[in-house]
Amino acid sequence: MVDLVKYTHSLALQAREASRQLVIATGEQKSRWLQLAADGIRRCSAEIIAANAQDLKAAPGYGLNTAAIDRLRLNESRLDAIAAALDDVIALPEPIGEVIDSNVRPNGLLVTRVRVPLGVVFFIYESRPNVTVDAAALCVKSGNAVILRGGKEALHSNLAFYQVLKNALIDAKLPEHAVQLVETTDREAVSHFLKLSQYIDVTIPRGGKSLIERVTAEASMPVIKHFDGVCHVYVDSSADLEQATAILINGKCQRPGVCNATETVLIHADVANSFLSHAVPLLKEKKVELRCCERSHDLVPGSLQATEADFRTEYLDLILSVKIVDSLDEAIGHITEFGSGHTDAIVTRDLASAERFTTRVDSAAVIVNASTRFNDGGEFGLGAEIGISTDKFHARGPCGLKELTSYKYVVHGQGQIRR
Amino acid sequence: MVDLVKYTHSLALQAREASRQLVIATGEQKSRWLQLAADGIRRCSAEIIAANAQDLKAAPGYGLNTAAIDRLRLNESRLDAIAAALDDVIALPEPIGEVIDSNVRPNGLLVTRVRVPLGVVFFIYESRPNVTVDAAALCVKSGNAVILRGGKEALHSNLAFYQVLKNALIDAKLPEHAVQLVETTDREAVSHFLKLSQYIDVTIPRGGKSLIERVTAEASMPVIKHFDGVCHVYVDSSADLEQATAILINGKCQRPGVCNATETVLIHADVANSFLSHAVPLLKEKKVELRCCERSHDLVPGSLQATEADFRTEYLDLILSVKIVDSLDEAIGHITEFGSGHTDAIVTRDLASAERFTTRVDSAAVIVNASTRFNDGGEFGLGAEIGISTDKFHARGPCGLKELTSYKYVVHGQGQIRR
Repeated sequence: MVDLVKYTHSLALQAREASRQLVIATGEQKSRWLQLAADGIRRCSAEIIAANAQDLKAAPGYGLNTAAIDRLRLNESRLDAIAAALDDVIALPEPIGEVIDSNVRPNGLLVTRVRVPLGVVFFIYESRPNVTVDAAALCVKSGNAVILRGGKEALHSNLAFYQVLKNALIDAKLPEHAVQLVETTDREAVSHFLKLSQYIDVTIPRGGKSLIERVTAEASMPVIKHFDGVCHVYVDSSADLEQATAILINGKCQRPGVCNATETVLIHADVANSFLSHAVPLLKEKKVELRCCERSHDLVPGSLQATEADFRTEYLDLILSVKIVDSLDEAIGHITEFGSGHTDAIVTRDLASAERFTTRVDSAAVIVNASTRFNDGGEFGLGAEIGISTDKFHARGPCGLKELTSYKYVVHGQGQIRR
Repeated sequence: MVDLVKYTHSLALQAREASRQLVIATGEQKSRWLQLAADGIRRCSAEIIAANAQDLKAAPGYGLNTAAIDRLRLNESRLDAIAAALDDVIALPEPIGEVIDSNVRPNGLLVTRVRVPLGVVFFIYESRPNVTVDAAALCVKSGNAVILRGGKEALHSNLAFYQVLKNALIDAKLPEHAVQLVETTDREAVSHFLKLSQYIDVTIPRGGKSLIERVTAEASMPVIKHFDGVCHVYVDSSADLEQATAILINGKCQRPGVCNATETVLIHADVANSFLSHAVPLLKEKKVELRCCERSHDLVPGSLQATEADFRTEYLDLILSVKIVDSLDEAIGHITEFGSGHTDAIVTRDLASAERFTTRVDSAAVIVNASTRFNDGGEFGLGAEIGISTDKFHARGPCGLKELTSYKYVVHGQGQIRR
């Protein structure tokens, strides 16, 4: 029986101490750690796969379905991909110590803003065990200590990865507690961590809405939230309808289970008939179920009628809400009312429409003439990402290395005093 | 009897609606508003001074001392200064719409980050009525709607300013509710606003520690915190002692009641004797009371002995804690343990010492060879500031226009879909 108060406090305090040393770790040391970890994952693949087998065995007992069990499964080629992802993180530029901007004052003071780590990250996530490795790599490369709290379904796999990451920290002469894994699956442990704002600088929950809501309500420190993506494609009256169809089908079908998949298409009335007659057969070919507003329902024989709730739903499935609008502004109004501020796209050939849409739609990513699926750290050029923030505060959209940092003012003078 | 739930909800909702229109306000419109407000303050000076007289009359009843009453007082020249500060805000560059950075992807997508407002700011402050005008100017210039909650001591003055600001909004054809003043002094109103995270994007409390702690505990939205400044000057063994003395005296005496005033001097043992014999007579001339560690106590006849609590205290007065240390690292350790992460300075001629200090001291501003008093938005070149953040999240140090903004990704493609 673990004393959770003591246990969580000791992990958090150890993380804080490790973070103080990580601030001054060189990029070379951190790359060495990432390299050793990648090597370790490849070398210990048999142990990791054996640990994963324990999780797979227990998975049906946790009620995991076939798809979830598949996501949990590790094999040689998946381990190779996880190790290769570490090589990619090594290749990203060192974020810490960068002079973000500077300013010489009339009195000669040189005022610089220098990028520094946030400190300690508490990262809560579910299922897929590769996230353990990705998150640790991003946090430590950005100079932060991290406390990892994975799902109980992946506990053995996570522990196996953790052992590799920890050994690599010791070998790289980085603080051993730079990465820590919460070894109890007790839900109460999370509540205890969320009280420790004196040690933990930010909490990042990645998982379902209820997890994020619970964490936000309980946390005494800032939280980077990753809420759902009710993403729209708006087909403007001036759209290239071939292009609009390709963008819609890609957004809906390329990977329907993720947050930047398209959930709703809004169509300008002037092109509704021709767009739908072109797009619907292709959507049906992809087995997409259509839930239509009253007007589009008439144009799509055999479609279902959408309820108001449908327009607010992140289906994460091959289902699409369809609505005809009379103007760009009606589309923007619908997105403001029903969207989740994640990713929204317009397909248009009209410059003024594109400008109006990008200025007025208040979402983390607003896209002109491309698929909503591009809102992703890798696709935006940030390298790996630890999540996609639906907040406006601190970080918005994909969170990579820089989003895990803060800054401080470093000022150089020659004896200046204030008059 | 006001229904606080309804009242706070209606202000917050109005602010949210105003913020949607402010996103698309041009810089010209906002400048016009600032100009009209400056003109209005000058034109209505008699009314404002009459309203202020009501506050001054009530001030002794609120227990305000002479200094606080003086800070509350408005006269023609102070009103001129408040109006002139608006001219300064007009002169600052327009923050909204700036492309912060951009990135062309291999597939031709142009990924830009565009600066946008946070949305709605709830600003809580005390006493000085000029803050009403400054805060409104910064929030609206950065495209945010603001709900102002001033202290009860300044209510009549604040209402008079608010009338001017509101009339100017209407004349400038900006949304009337872009600036709203909470007209009840009921403390409970604050608690109600702090629950309305669906409308309010950030709360900024500016005042005593207990206010900030209460707001942080209750707020359901992010808070930009401005905690106390236990600021240090460390006199290195290689310091120019004349320079160190000037920096210390400026930091302590130029304006002792503010957060970036110096509270503690740490002195390397090698120079303690010569530094103290030079500096102490000058400090005494300025009527500074010295509270000394055991070793320095012996070197300063007639000084008081410092307790551990002294080293943690923001005196905001002509009192200075003094401690002799044996090394730069001991100084850094003391600052880590006793400091508040606000502003810390080193006086040194040694490059390695300067680098070690700026890298390892984890404060919002770390200063080499200049006074701690420079940690200020105006002095750092940000223009006016709404506060100095002691957080690491979102904004650290002085918060000017940019710190009141977020960003969104705006992506331009030519039909790209994800493979």
